Amino acid sequence: MRVRICLVGLGAVGQGFLRAAQLKGEYLKKRYGLELTFTGVADSSGAIHDGNGLDIAEILRHKREEGVGSHPSGVEGMSGLELLDEVEYDCLVEATPTSITDGEPGRSLLIKALGDGKHVVTSNKGHLALFYSELMELSSETGAELMFEASVGGAMPIINLARETLTSCSIESVIGILNGTTNFILSRMTSEGSSYEQALLEAQELGIAETNPAQDVEGTDAACKAVILANAILGRPCTLRDVSVEGITGITQGAIELAAQEGYLIKLIAEISDDTLEVGPRLVRMGSPYAVDGTLNMATLRTDLAGEVTVVGRGAGSLETASAMLTDTLTIWRRHRDSR
Amino acid sequence: MRVRICLVGLGAVGQGFLRAAQLKGEYLKKRYGLELTFTGVADSSGAIHDGNGLDIAEILRHKREEGVGSHPSGVEGMSGLELLDEVEYDCLVEATPTSITDGEPGRSLLIKALGDGKHVVTSNKGHLALFYSELMELSSETGAELMFEASVGGAMPIINLARETLTSCSIESVIGILNGTTNFILSRMTSEGSSYEQALLEAQELGIAETNPAQDVEGTDAACKAVILANAILGRPCTLRDVSVEGITGITQGAIELAAQEGYLIKLIAEISDDTLEVGPRLVRMGSPYAVDGTLNMATLRTDLAGEVTVVGRGAGSLETASAMLTDTLTIWRRHRDSR
Repeated sequence: MRVRICLVGLGAVGQGFLRAAQLKGEYLKKRYGLELTFTGVADSSGAIHDGNGLDIAEILRHKREEGVGSHPSGVEGMSGLELLDEVEYDCLVEATPTSITDGEPGRSLLIKALGDGKHVVTSNKGHLALFYSELMELSSETGAELMFEASVGGAMPIINLARETLTSCSIESVIGILNGTTNFILSRMTSEGSSYEQALLEAQELGIAETNPAQDVEGTDAACKAVILANAILGRPCTLRDVSVEGITGITQGAIELAAQEGYLIKLIAEISDDTLEVGPRLVRMGSPYAVDGTLNMATLRTDLAGEVTVVGRGAGSLETASAMLTDTLTIWRRHRDSR
Repeated sequence: MRVRICLVGLGAVGQGFLRAAQLKGEYLKKRYGLELTFTGVADSSGAIHDGNGLDIAEILRHKREEGVGSHPSGVEGMSGLELLDEVEYDCLVEATPTSITDGEPGRSLLIKALGDGKHVVTSNKGHLALFYSELMELSSETGAELMFEASVGGAMPIINLARETLTSCSIESVIGILNGTTNFILSRMTSEGSSYEQALLEAQELGIAETNPAQDVEGTDAACKAVILANAILGRPCTLRDVSVEGITGITQGAIELAAQEGYLIKLIAEISDDTLEVGPRLVRMGSPYAVDGTLNMATLRTDLAGEVTVVGRGAGSLETASAMLTDTLTIWRRHRDSR
């Protein structure tokens, strides 16, 4: 069965989604009977659409040189929101950049799509961290699904694990390392004895930290993800304003050495329970599931029956993050195929 | 909706299943509309059955003193297999002891139940490690489900994670620590500088290792689990005879120290891919997801799109293991409720 995708946002994740769909097209068709067709694609330069389906390879090739707006069949300057009115689609795949001030342009795209009864898969976290309840209410009202595994921890399947794989357990809290950049910096300070400044510079040179690293090192990115997990896993309505946040800019080499002498590491940890919503540096024991290094993300679910269950995965990466979006797309399709 | 359970095996896991059903009875009813009724229970002393449902608290209380066969309403000497002919049930929950020579009594119980078209949830691994293909064929023939998350790594949801949560990915290999006893022994040798003999004795005193620890320390237990993962996750038909196994009895304190100097730990690792099926001591890097200590189990799935995804959890424990069986029971019920 054919599912028509409208993809908005063609950065690393959006392009990753196109590549993932290309790589796994035959697999999804053979194994699940799912055929993905891209009827519309938009980036910041414009949009391109074709009800019969666009050529993925052609879009990717063109994108490497310029934006889709300048494609011979493209419409320069057409926004993603305008595209949604032009194109026939079943599912919006939204991969626009995160804004933590107003959640735009993602928020308007989701309101439009969900309002029109179209399913949404997103990797964005701004709109969810600011307007989770509103967006979920709209989804309930129209019966259109909103899925967002990729928004927290990239390829680490924490949300679906909690909701679909541990169904007999009640989840009491979530504790995790939700930002790969800060985990890399703290890991290098530990393994190499670097100063915070040296480790940050190394991360920037490797493309792991951005030129302006504020959202990562000050804990805002992890805080957005904590809000999403609190809402999605614990059913606790909250927004970014409710998180108590401390970043890693004050962590010294001395503090890391002192911790190591006692068998501990310093990690930027998010703690989420019914009465806690915090992001900050914490001591974790070497040999525990929290002691993963490099850019890895991890999250531990504390459950009533199963004890602690932890998942570890790559928190970023174009194809890795896209794989979570592809799984979400498949899940929506499997849930709804019988009712179409 | 009511699901009638016949429970065979009342050791730690069987009793855990009764307690879990007791603890979560209201939750499952309220959240999913599932009502579990125990119509038959058997242990090595005999069996007890009642088509209207047995009193869980009463069975547990009686079991603490003597076997169910000696219960006023019980039938002394009635085997689990005989019970299956006496009782009306929808799902067999099988928690008899593992036998790696002939898979009994679990094998006969599964053949009987699946042959009669009854679903099965098991925590046992002997029958699966010896007769996986035969049992799955029978399940396919009659349409009765056979689920076994609890048989590998207790509360660590590796099978359901691979099959239900990473659906867009192909899984290329599984690498993991599948035995908690040997992980404890190696962890103590590392953290305390103990000899193998000292660490084993400590594990025995704590009830982590059995008086005869052969199946754990020689790698057989991990090999059984490797066989189950190879069949269930990679679709590779194999049995216990196909595994290349080496245990930890030859690991010296010197080897552990040498590894530690280079930033490595020695772990008993199972490696499963299309062309590998091995259990043996391996070096793992400190700071990697393989570096978890104590009795924890872990497994890493290498995937084509998502990179490596790891899950960590308690490999044993009465309630923990039972939680995996309860989730499997719920999954079967959710899959079949519409067709009943």
